[in-house]
Amino acid sequence: MNELQMLRQKNLDTIFNPKSVAVVGTNKVKGTVPYDILDNILKSDFNGMVFPVSPRELSIKGIRAYKYVVDVPDDVDLAILVFPSSVCHMALEQCGQKGIKAVIIISAGFKEVGEAGLMKERQLVDIARKYGMSFIGPNCLGVINTAPEVKLNASFAREMPGIGNIGFLSQSGALCTAVLDYASAKHIGFSKFISFGNKADISEIDLLYYLMNDDPTKVILMYLEEVSDGIALMKAAREVIAKSGKPILIIKSGRTEAGASAAASHTGSLTGKDEICDAAFAQAGIIRCDNIEEMFNKAIAFAYQPAPKSEKVAIITNAGGPGVLTTDAAISRGLKLAKFSEETTKILKKALPATANIKNPVDVIGDARSDRYVAAINAAFDDPDVDGVFVILTPQSMTDIDAIAEDVTKIAEGQTKPIYASFMGEKDVASGIQILQKKKIPHYILPESMCMAFEAVYHFNQHLKIKEHRVPELDHIQGKVARDMMNKFSSNGRSFIPEVETIHLLQTYGLPVPKGRLATSVDEAVQIAGEIGYPVVMKVVSDQIIHKSEVRGVELDIRDEIQAKEAYERIHEHVADIMPDASIKGIYVINMISGSEELILGIKRDPSFGPVVIVGLGGIFVEVFKDVSFGVAPLSYEEARRMIEQTRAYKILSGLRGRAPRDIESVIDALLRLGKMAEDFREIEELDINPLFVLEEGKGSIIGDARMILKRTK
Amino acid sequence: MNELQMLRQKNLDTIFNPKSVAVVGTNKVKGTVPYDILDNILKSDFNGMVFPVSPRELSIKGIRAYKYVVDVPDDVDLAILVFPSSVCHMALEQCGQKGIKAVIIISAGFKEVGEAGLMKERQLVDIARKYGMSFIGPNCLGVINTAPEVKLNASFAREMPGIGNIGFLSQSGALCTAVLDYASAKHIGFSKFISFGNKADISEIDLLYYLMNDDPTKVILMYLEEVSDGIALMKAAREVIAKSGKPILIIKSGRTEAGASAAASHTGSLTGKDEICDAAFAQAGIIRCDNIEEMFNKAIAFAYQPAPKSEKVAIITNAGGPGVLTTDAAISRGLKLAKFSEETTKILKKALPATANIKNPVDVIGDARSDRYVAAINAAFDDPDVDGVFVILTPQSMTDIDAIAEDVTKIAEGQTKPIYASFMGEKDVASGIQILQKKKIPHYILPESMCMAFEAVYHFNQHLKIKEHRVPELDHIQGKVARDMMNKFSSNGRSFIPEVETIHLLQTYGLPVPKGRLATSVDEAVQIAGEIGYPVVMKVVSDQIIHKSEVRGVELDIRDEIQAKEAYERIHEHVADIMPDASIKGIYVINMISGSEELILGIKRDPSFGPVVIVGLGGIFVEVFKDVSFGVAPLSYEEARRMIEQTRAYKILSGLRGRAPRDIESVIDALLRLGKMAEDFREIEELDINPLFVLEEGKGSIIGDARMILKRTK
Repeated sequence: MNELQMLRQKNLDTIFNPKSVAVVGTNKVKGTVPYDILDNILKSDFNGMVFPVSPRELSIKGIRAYKYVVDVPDDVDLAILVFPSSVCHMALEQCGQKGIKAVIIISAGFKEVGEAGLMKERQLVDIARKYGMSFIGPNCLGVINTAPEVKLNASFAREMPGIGNIGFLSQSGALCTAVLDYASAKHIGFSKFISFGNKADISEIDLLYYLMNDDPTKVILMYLEEVSDGIALMKAAREVIAKSGKPILIIKSGRTEAGASAAASHTGSLTGKDEICDAAFAQAGIIRCDNIEEMFNKAIAFAYQPAPKSEKVAIITNAGGPGVLTTDAAISRGLKLAKFSEETTKILKKALPATANIKNPVDVIGDARSDRYVAAINAAFDDPDVDGVFVILTPQSMTDIDAIAEDVTKIAEGQTKPIYASFMGEKDVASGIQILQKKKIPHYILPESMCMAFEAVYHFNQHLKIKEHRVPELDHIQGKVARDMMNKFSSNGRSFIPEVETIHLLQTYGLPVPKGRLATSVDEAVQIAGEIGYPVVMKVVSDQIIHKSEVRGVELDIRDEIQAKEAYERIHEHVADIMPDASIKGIYVINMISGSEELILGIKRDPSFGPVVIVGLGGIFVEVFKDVSFGVAPLSYEEARRMIEQTRAYKILSGLRGRAPRDIESVIDALLRLGKMAEDFREIEELDINPLFVLEEGKGSIIGDARMILKRTK
Repeated sequence: MNELQMLRQKNLDTIFNPKSVAVVGTNKVKGTVPYDILDNILKSDFNGMVFPVSPRELSIKGIRAYKYVVDVPDDVDLAILVFPSSVCHMALEQCGQKGIKAVIIISAGFKEVGEAGLMKERQLVDIARKYGMSFIGPNCLGVINTAPEVKLNASFAREMPGIGNIGFLSQSGALCTAVLDYASAKHIGFSKFISFGNKADISEIDLLYYLMNDDPTKVILMYLEEVSDGIALMKAAREVIAKSGKPILIIKSGRTEAGASAAASHTGSLTGKDEICDAAFAQAGIIRCDNIEEMFNKAIAFAYQPAPKSEKVAIITNAGGPGVLTTDAAISRGLKLAKFSEETTKILKKALPATANIKNPVDVIGDARSDRYVAAINAAFDDPDVDGVFVILTPQSMTDIDAIAEDVTKIAEGQTKPIYASFMGEKDVASGIQILQKKKIPHYILPESMCMAFEAVYHFNQHLKIKEHRVPELDHIQGKVARDMMNKFSSNGRSFIPEVETIHLLQTYGLPVPKGRLATSVDEAVQIAGEIGYPVVMKVVSDQIIHKSEVRGVELDIRDEIQAKEAYERIHEHVADIMPDASIKGIYVINMISGSEELILGIKRDPSFGPVVIVGLGGIFVEVFKDVSFGVAPLSYEEARRMIEQTRAYKILSGLRGRAPRDIESVIDALLRLGKMAEDFREIEELDINPLFVLEEGKGSIIGDARMILKRTK
């Protein structure tokens, strides 16, 4: 953490725990933001002092007001700016003069309205730097700290949320109001609630680090429209998760291109490819959610209940149909139905009527009252094969809904295994659901959501157990040779680097290149072929020819000297015919590989996450099945392995239907080396190895073709 | 429709519109089913007469009771049986004697409890047949008719639902209670509500036909655990949809194997493969839903709003974030954002503040009150490119939620384009949502659900427009030859039919078989090869050899007479070596095909839907990508085409990256012929064509290999 970041952590502490707050630019007009902020702070029963700062008023709500913040006689810890954007810089300057270090800028009219706004925003940052201040915003809703020793609602949200252990961060202020309303109806509480707006100074990264050390926060939620620094976000997330074990759930909007352009039109975001974002989040251990509902469904599972030790659950229901639907949902989500022991079966048999289903899913039958539920849940909890219990209820005429809800909360107390519930319906079950929600039993309308939440907690906990991945040391890397080679490419202002040179570069990083060399005469070609042994392949090399096969510049399976001479001449004739202006550097003669599986490997530079390594099934299937997987560099061994395992090609490589298993380790090695290259050479915009021939287990891989695009240095 | 089915339609009419009802087996014990049923009928303000029948009571709730149903002095239209299962047959016999034709059997304790129960159930059916009666149940919740001229709640549901145009059918009684509760909270009304239980007599098929002609019902929903006759269900659904234009939405539980076995454990269902069910439903135009929430999300879109003419929508929001999330959801669901005309842009510019986003998605900005929403919605409706409007609202401090809801309902009146809403949050927006729900504006918590519902209505409407598919006449079918051939196979009690014979059979149905014949001597093999021309392929033929390549019984690319002789001998040697007991019928000599794409085609018999045709990508990719598509036979031309189009292989066949386009029509023709074969020969359990070589456009396809499994006749 650099000095500026450390300063922000210190100032964030003041933002959340101020002894005195000035609301700068407030007024007496009810229903306006400048007034609502002041009003909310007072209503939240804040434990410190509040100073209204208003050029026009002597007092507001009976409290002495000051013309300027510098006029306030006491020390001010936190200033909240609600002036119009045109005068914010002057107010901030005064805050600096007053010695205030912590600021929230609520005012809108900055980056989000275009170039002029962006200039104003930069001015704010400059002023903050000058005085060692840090600020949240501009263009935000404010922040809330529910801690009983603080009780600060420094926002224009309609209401103060309840206390809880969820920290919520949002780039969109409007979404905050919907979230608060949603959470309040479901009795979901928060530790911190932060709208960070344009994040001109304090960013989501700073806030992540802050929440890492914030005791009351156990679960971190975030709504993001723009990943401005994906690398930093991943680094921060990894650190937060590793050090604190707190899960991070993020909604990143702009999944589709139209969505991204709508996001751009209102915040000016630059959005990277969505699949890369998926991969990067997964690598960092971030749980990506599609919407608020999904996020909170998972968040309450994390916040309310212990993590399951395995994916094996017991389902207790009073109706067969919903039991089947829940089983379907569980299996689809990768959960398993626990197998009850004889002991459990005996207990259930005794406790339930003869018509009940005592196998998992347990059907306590429509006329069940609470006693049957209690017996079944206890039996399930006691079974060693059960690591989680799902309680399903339909409101039938005999069902004592509230009593069952109460009993579920009692059974859950002190349990080390999680219990979730789904009371189906709406009106009749409403009071029962409220009982569950207040006592922190995760409740779900849909079995799907319940299973998805369970799976998320289980999966995150498995992720936590994995020892920190380390990027392995790679041998045979000639860093200096490669650097010189790359400098030479760039110094000539070249962008497209064709096969032979790309392969030379790859060789310096220990990637498996084919045998062969460039031939500039037919005799040399024959000589090379003789050296490496027939059959060989010949390919034209030219800076102008990107698609060699389109000029018929590739000859395969050349079996002897005569064929070699013919092939050499034929390539020259074809190129002369189809692309007479192309300058031919020579003919690349390499050994011919057969009996292999073909993959595609590559590097792409993502504007947000930086260097990304790609692997997938080669040949025409790349386009048909889009069977590719991404990893942000640098890669650990485990990440490189996961990348391959995630492709369907993995099944083929593993030896399908009596086909020979392939050398997967050599592919992992190639990915690790590509990852290192991508890190070391930021000028690589794209690099394709297509195909990589993967030989049988123990025999390695060989590059079949490669090319590279460098960033143009202007 | 046969006589029995016609009888059921007539009796169903009496079940729903009885002038007099007898509750047979009722009592005075509140909270029991026999009492609740009587009580519900009286509470529902039924327009006819009710007769309690109770062996022990003289009167119940002040109404004269009768010992037996035959004692009732007046005519009885409908009898509702609530006796224990042990005496139901006697009560039903008496109903028959009394001349009652319409019966609902609520009582449980039949098929669902095992063999003894099944016997009792069959007894009920026999009695019904004898007297020309029809009954719903047993083991059900009963039926509800909300029509004002009837008002009958002949069920033990907790409450009578509101009037509406949704007809709901359920195999599970317990689910009904959850559905009624859910719907009541959301102000969703019903036309008919039917729990059909074990469907021993009247089935879901009868009910579908009944609702087809039931005027108040506009949308049909069903919860099914068991598709006992898939073919009849598809036929009925097709007819209902074609004749009435009413959409049919079905939850079919038991998607996963564990789910299916849980279903089996409680109703004894036999479940077919789930993908086949998906395909069959899609063919019939049925909309399959995963859960209650999804079903009602779609149902209200159908029931409340006109169908969209295109997939182009306008999104109106007061917050950028939710606008982006909705755009993401719309694009992911295949919807499009409408492009506003200059006219619309001008209107929006004038009506909205400068900071608003006047492009689609329109952001009327956080401080918008109802006037801005109204202006934006009207402008969107008037735009010719817009065919649907999504209204998104977040509860910000200025937002006049209820006024906006009222205005949305007013604008929607008389509109020919649909409007859906999502008021985000929960408590603050609750009253606004209620206004929308009461005035039949579909409201969704999630943008995803909104877009999914819109897409479902759009897609169904497109489906309706398609002229009825016809199964085409196929030429060159030698039905009698094929029948004789098949009879011979079966008469020998054979099950596995190897390549040559399967190919002969396929040839009689006009499928494209390779050139070649069976050779029983080396000289004959050479002669055949000479006739068809080299290169050829040779394969061993034996009833005992299912996997020819495992005994090395296939020789490819045989180029001349010498190679032919060698190959012939080699095959015999290999088989003698690896599987010495196999009796070799001969060597199959056929022409060698190269330069083709390989597909797999086949027939499978599904226990529920009958003959199913399959097509997919051949080779090892079958297993890796499971790129297959299903169609229930008989197939129309359009269905066969859709089957291929649904595979990813279609992209390859269409000519990817300069590869030659393939003869897709010949594949369609092959599928149609397979469909006809599957229909004509019910004894085919499985038939595989693997591979089918698909040649270039206009050049047809050729079968590479085939085999068949026949049902064993015991």
